[in-house]
Amino acid sequence: MDNRIASVETLLTCPDRNYLLVKVTTEAGVVGYGDATLNGRELAVKTVLDEYTAPLLRGCDSGRIEDIWQMLFRHTYWRGGPVLQTAMAGVDMALWDLLGKRTGLPVYQLLGGKSRDRIKTYYHVHGDTSEALIARAHEAVKAGAQVLRYSFSTKNPFHPESGRSYTQPHQDIELNERFEVKGQAGGTMADTETQIARWETEPYLEELPDITAALRHAVGPHIGLIHDIHSRCTPIQAVRAAKELEPCHLLFLEDPIEPLNREALELVRAASATPLATGELFNTMDQLLPLLQRRLIDYIRLDISHFGGITPLRKAAYVAEACGVKTAFHGPGDISPLAHAAQFHLDLHVPNFGVQETLRFDPRLSEVFEWHTVTEDGYLSFEEQPGLGVAVDEAAAAAFPYRKAFIPGHRDEGGAVHDW
Amino acid sequence: MDNRIASVETLLTCPDRNYLLVKVTTEAGVVGYGDATLNGRELAVKTVLDEYTAPLLRGCDSGRIEDIWQMLFRHTYWRGGPVLQTAMAGVDMALWDLLGKRTGLPVYQLLGGKSRDRIKTYYHVHGDTSEALIARAHEAVKAGAQVLRYSFSTKNPFHPESGRSYTQPHQDIELNERFEVKGQAGGTMADTETQIARWETEPYLEELPDITAALRHAVGPHIGLIHDIHSRCTPIQAVRAAKELEPCHLLFLEDPIEPLNREALELVRAASATPLATGELFNTMDQLLPLLQRRLIDYIRLDISHFGGITPLRKAAYVAEACGVKTAFHGPGDISPLAHAAQFHLDLHVPNFGVQETLRFDPRLSEVFEWHTVTEDGYLSFEEQPGLGVAVDEAAAAAFPYRKAFIPGHRDEGGAVHDW
Amino acid sequence: MDNRIASVETLLTCPDRNYLLVKVTTEAGVVGYGDATLNGRELAVKTVLDEYTAPLLRGCDSGRIEDIWQMLFRHTYWRGGPVLQTAMAGVDMALWDLLGKRTGLPVYQLLGGKSRDRIKTYYHVHGDTSEALIARAHEAVKAGAQVLRYSFSTKNPFHPESGRSYTQPHQDIELNERFEVKGQAGGTMADTETQIARWETEPYLEELPDITAALRHAVGPHIGLIHDIHSRCTPIQAVRAAKELEPCHLLFLEDPIEPLNREALELVRAASATPLATGELFNTMDQLLPLLQRRLIDYIRLDISHFGGITPLRKAAYVAEACGVKTAFHGPGDISPLAHAAQFHLDLHVPNFGVQETLRFDPRLSEVFEWHTVTEDGYLSFEEQPGLGVAVDEAAAAAFPYRKAFIPGHRDEGGAVHDW
Amino acid sequence: MDNRIASVETLLTCPDRNYLLVKVTTEAGVVGYGDATLNGRELAVKTVLDEYTAPLLRGCDSGRIEDIWQMLFRHTYWRGGPVLQTAMAGVDMALWDLLGKRTGLPVYQLLGGKSRDRIKTYYHVHGDTSEALIARAHEAVKAGAQVLRYSFSTKNPFHPESGRSYTQPHQDIELNERFEVKGQAGGTMADTETQIARWETEPYLEELPDITAALRHAVGPHIGLIHDIHSRCTPIQAVRAAKELEPCHLLFLEDPIEPLNREALELVRAASATPLATGELFNTMDQLLPLLQRRLIDYIRLDISHFGGITPLRKAAYVAEACGVKTAFHGPGDISPLAHAAQFHLDLHVPNFGVQETLRFDPRLSEVFEWHTVTEDGYLSFEEQPGLGVAVDEAAAAAFPYRKAFIPGHRDEGGAVHDW
Repeated sequence: MDNRIASVETLLTCPDRNYLLVKVTTEAGVVGYGDATLNGRELAVKTVLDEYTAPLLRGCDSGRIEDIWQMLFRHTYWRGGPVLQTAMAGVDMALWDLLGKRTGLPVYQLLGGKSRDRIKTYYHVHGDTSEALIARAHEAVKAGAQVLRYSFSTKNPFHPESGRSYTQPHQDIELNERFEVKGQAGGTMADTETQIARWETEPYLEELPDITAALRHAVGPHIGLIHDIHSRCTPIQAVRAAKELEPCHLLFLEDPIEPLNREALELVRAASATPLATGELFNTMDQLLPLLQRRLIDYIRLDISHFGGITPLRKAAYVAEACGVKTAFHGPGDISPLAHAAQFHLDLHVPNFGVQETLRFDPRLSEVFEWHTVTEDGYLSFEEQPGLGVAVDEAAAAAFPYRKAFIPGHRDEGGAVHDW
Repeated sequence: MDNRIASVETLLTCPDRNYLLVKVTTEAGVVGYGDATLNGRELAVKTVLDEYTAPLLRGCDSGRIEDIWQMLFRHTYWRGGPVLQTAMAGVDMALWDLLGKRTGLPVYQLLGGKSRDRIKTYYHVHGDTSEALIARAHEAVKAGAQVLRYSFSTKNPFHPESGRSYTQPHQDIELNERFEVKGQAGGTMADTETQIARWETEPYLEELPDITAALRHAVGPHIGLIHDIHSRCTPIQAVRAAKELEPCHLLFLEDPIEPLNREALELVRAASATPLATGELFNTMDQLLPLLQRRLIDYIRLDISHFGGITPLRKAAYVAEACGVKTAFHGPGDISPLAHAAQFHLDLHVPNFGVQETLRFDPRLSEVFEWHTVTEDGYLSFEEQPGLGVAVDEAAAAAFPYRKAFIPGHRDEGGAVHDW
Repeated sequence: MDNRIASVETLLTCPDRNYLLVKVTTEAGVVGYGDATLNGRELAVKTVLDEYTAPLLRGCDSGRIEDIWQMLFRHTYWRGGPVLQTAMAGVDMALWDLLGKRTGLPVYQLLGGKSRDRIKTYYHVHGDTSEALIARAHEAVKAGAQVLRYSFSTKNPFHPESGRSYTQPHQDIELNERFEVKGQAGGTMADTETQIARWETEPYLEELPDITAALRHAVGPHIGLIHDIHSRCTPIQAVRAAKELEPCHLLFLEDPIEPLNREALELVRAASATPLATGELFNTMDQLLPLLQRRLIDYIRLDISHFGGITPLRKAAYVAEACGVKTAFHGPGDISPLAHAAQFHLDLHVPNFGVQETLRFDPRLSEVFEWHTVTEDGYLSFEEQPGLGVAVDEAAAAAFPYRKAFIPGHRDEGGAVHDW
Repeated sequence: MDNRIASVETLLTCPDRNYLLVKVTTEAGVVGYGDATLNGRELAVKTVLDEYTAPLLRGCDSGRIEDIWQMLFRHTYWRGGPVLQTAMAGVDMALWDLLGKRTGLPVYQLLGGKSRDRIKTYYHVHGDTSEALIARAHEAVKAGAQVLRYSFSTKNPFHPESGRSYTQPHQDIELNERFEVKGQAGGTMADTETQIARWETEPYLEELPDITAALRHAVGPHIGLIHDIHSRCTPIQAVRAAKELEPCHLLFLEDPIEPLNREALELVRAASATPLATGELFNTMDQLLPLLQRRLIDYIRLDISHFGGITPLRKAAYVAEACGVKTAFHGPGDISPLAHAAQFHLDLHVPNFGVQETLRFDPRLSEVFEWHTVTEDGYLSFEEQPGLGVAVDEAAAAAFPYRKAFIPGHRDEGGAVHDW
């Protein structure tokens, strides 16, 4: 069988939101798919893949996955960052998928086999008010959820009548987050102001402990609760949050401070027994390693599509294992089912698996991706197939063309840019 | 005057190698240019600018340079890395150029004015042998150079007859390096092997001290010598080099280890009195700050086009000043004269300026970029003009179309990928 | 295909020295072999496997390699140490061999594929005198060696006529080390005194720099030299050795101090630019991790059979990669060709491979193990086969029955036990 | 008197659970006994002793206890770990017992004599519910206990009707724990599932503070309370437990995290004033020393049979004394009365004795071991005899043959292996 790479192609599809897929085909005709979605910058990743990666890989042995990863990482010289790492991730997943299909084995088996039977998951619950949040949480628990990631909205306390409220990022439990921004659909983006949401951290921090306590009381002591600060606190604000949430026994507090200010995590760490998680914005190991070495976090929230694929995510999980840290891979709607599947294969394999974020995909996705998962009692299982186990219907994908969409911008009440 | 941004355009030109320029025009018709060249991935940066940045900035106040930088940095959510930061750098330089033109002031004046009259520079000298290197150094010194960055080639010691030698990256003193790789021109890249150069660090390390001592002897004690390991040593190899070069009194030893293994710089630091420099591969402050805080380096080698422009480079220089560290901004042929000019403006301004890398550009560049600099006694001066002071001839630029070219790949004698 | 484990069996064979093999057979009849040799304690490992591991694993899914590793590691409660980890290693290698045979793929492909084409190796050269050592080194270099591990003997300086000399552990370049001890063969071990060799570190340390300098002079600057202190120095003696050997540019200095005094490596590390290696006596990650985190070593000398198999050795290599540390896996004659093969598969795969210790096996081994490797110019390649690629002739193995043999004891001139 | 060792023999007996005894006899016919029990791996230790240690020691001077320890430790080269250290421990205790019998002195006298009159002890109390636990605690206190080690069971909170509960390891106050596992007796172990107990840490952590507070309230402020997390928490979970138990004034919290993740104890240490203890899984000093040097623990929980005997345990106690740390030697039912006796001798001797774990042995043990201890007011005393003071009835021992038994395996609700 001729395992040399005949072609590397990209597919950009928007069944409900944009996904960029990578398709690698060998001379023998075996095909592997991977996910290279970088929300809001899809075309940049596509350009990297089409213009640079595809010609470079033609003729390479598709089985030299590690070599290809190293070559793509080092030969650009200018390395790292979301665009290049996401492009690599798409290729890397496709090569593992392809190796699975060549051998007839699911990817988790190639990685060294299962260390568990099923995958503990968590879903998002959001409420604009405390009451609405609790109602959604009750629904979710009734549906079997054992772990919830909760978020809420905070009214502008000085002008409550303005209707302005501060809402944290979340994805709906039934439909995934769409990131559709006002004024954009079908139009130009000339008027950037219309895209902007408002954010102030202090009012949010003021409400956070009470809402969390109410939620904890409502769902009882045994439902795992996760809260995502989404990098919106200063270090000392994060210290306050971590301390005040301590009695609520979170499973973890996510992204307490901005991702590039990693050194300041020491302050948050020293403050409380609240478990900490971070990593969805990391692209390379240098961003993660010091946090593991100094035991500053308890869960790694890496995202397979932005960290460069199965090859480096597996290594990161092993380094975390050596340091006594667990995985909680990022599982948003902004990466495709291929990426979710790849993470599930790792979840089954790595011994230090903690929990997996996931969502109920928009039904339109099933027209493009054929994939069978079952979630029972909060644990997910999937049907075994060679490779990643997700079939892609290219014709259906083509029927959903790319529509440019942006991650929503945020500014504070003084008009300054704020992290989303 | 209506200072709102009317358009953000890109120009890709290849007078001798590829440069990606950003042109920002206000409603009032004032124009600014910036450099967004990312060697080997130009089209990805261009896609970011054309598809995402240009529509976003249309209508923004061109004077809100800081605000635009923050918006571009944070609103993508997925941040950092060479592609996105280089795109931002192009916009940022163009906005400073534009502000200079609006006000009739050179950029250094807008930054707070000069703290010096002229800029100490260094150029590359390369020799395939020790003798050739010394000959080139003599020429350079004769031409006025006070500081030299030297490199050389090392023959494969096991098969000297093979003609294989290990050559360090450098740029020619007269013509800039072209990165043209064998077998590529006009053809496909299917046969990746033909693009590969070989590298082994041990034979190079073996020759380094003797060649350096010979060079030091030849040029005398007063010429500044810089050597660039180009990230090709392991930490302990770098320790060896730093110790063995100690008696040669380098101005600095550059990039002793790979850029993502920054923690290991501690080891190199403890080993010798050889000054250390690093940073050309850094894109964001989080990569630099720990090195400054712990005083692990003596010079920051940041590159304005890859670190995000004048706005963040200025801040980095100020943080370095606070820590007693000097600047030695990256000045290769792979960023355009616009970027060089922007760095020169900063060089004149910052009090902790150390030295500036530069080169003699290929004469073909002067068809595209009109710019007057003079180097005398190793010090560079330039003619004052509003903004950056570099005029761009767009028609000439268009006459040199983009030709895809790659950074050369390296592998060791065992066939494994090696950093370039 | 029924991949459940039908049986786990052990084979103890002594073609020239003792090897303990593990054979795992599935219900479908597929067979995998692994190495569980623990020199001098073979029967203890065999008891673990026969009495405890074999019944436990019967009926388990042979593909759940990670799960089986975790179960064997944690379910004993009393964990770690050479006996238990070596037993696990045998099973683990056999399961990877078996998975390769099921899929028709060599193990390196299952691990993620090659990152290099061939494996840089080193061999032992030993001389009782400086002259003899240099003669052997010349022979080895003539035969193509690029890296040598050298050792020598030191005469008792107070009673040179006594014939007593202090000899470092080594394996012959042509025949592997036999560890046959005087008075033992065919007899009882009642007279323990007869088994004892003498050792004094100071006379050895006195000779070490001169012999090394002479050897370096003889072989020239480009042959890699490795010296193994074999844990026989106190920390400050190791500091002296590392400093005094610095001008000889060792590839690395191995096991400078005793393995359980790992904290003291800091002292040795701070002393010189001599690269350091350790790890052949490590059984679990907790022994390695602090050395990597603090960058105290440059090469990990782990041994696949004593560290628990492919599963943990792969993880250790990845952790080392994150820390900028290379591999130099232990390759003595006291582990079987199956273990050597398993390490070769990892060598081909891991990007941070450094060098591989190996030896020319006794010809009698080829009666038991069928395996084709070629070493050219100091680089090893092997014929690709499914799994580990080593065929075992069980009838031939049975024809070489176990003969109890011990690692030689050492005492100093005062009569005290000394590390071997 | 000829004190040379004539024989080293092993006795494996199972009066209620398995014990492996070592019997050393001198040429003069003096006999010493030691304990070499390694629960669940008895036959591996027996093989080491019968096949390797016994022949090696024949003819050695039985009084060279230190020399024999060093020889056994270093001559294997591959050192440490539970199997080898337990074998050594058996020999070491036997040699001390023998020396006592030769001299007519109890072992504590040979060690340097008493520093106290009697030994403060603690026993286990366990309840499946809070009420049952308190009832057992009241009984124990009524019987004179001053210190209690408490444990409890936690119902599966998601499926309380399932009958599944999470139970911590403990030993019954009257009968020692048997580790008999379902489906095993008289059968094969093919069906590994039947041996598995379930464990989830979060529900347990949820109940721990309330149960502890209730227990503290019930027994009043003056009864010492010990809780054993049994390595089942992640570091941050241990932080939570240590903080939440702080007001309950534990005597100590034991094994808060897994034993090979020792570095993370720093996190737990910084969190609260709850005293910490660990060490029952340590086999060698390198595992303990960093914890003492950094004052991360308050009690050493070493176990004489797994740490290598009286010789190293005495040294460990002395190092702890130097660091201001106390002893709390492991005293489970899984080591024989010989080991308990050896620890009692050390308890009487070392000035930094803290407390001694013990249990009421199964009456069947008194058929094999003749030994007289009295516990009054929580303090233990024993009848003075030469040596360890425990007589072994070999005929009775032979009447209780070995029955293979395993430490129970645990898995979490996702099916992954969990530490016991």
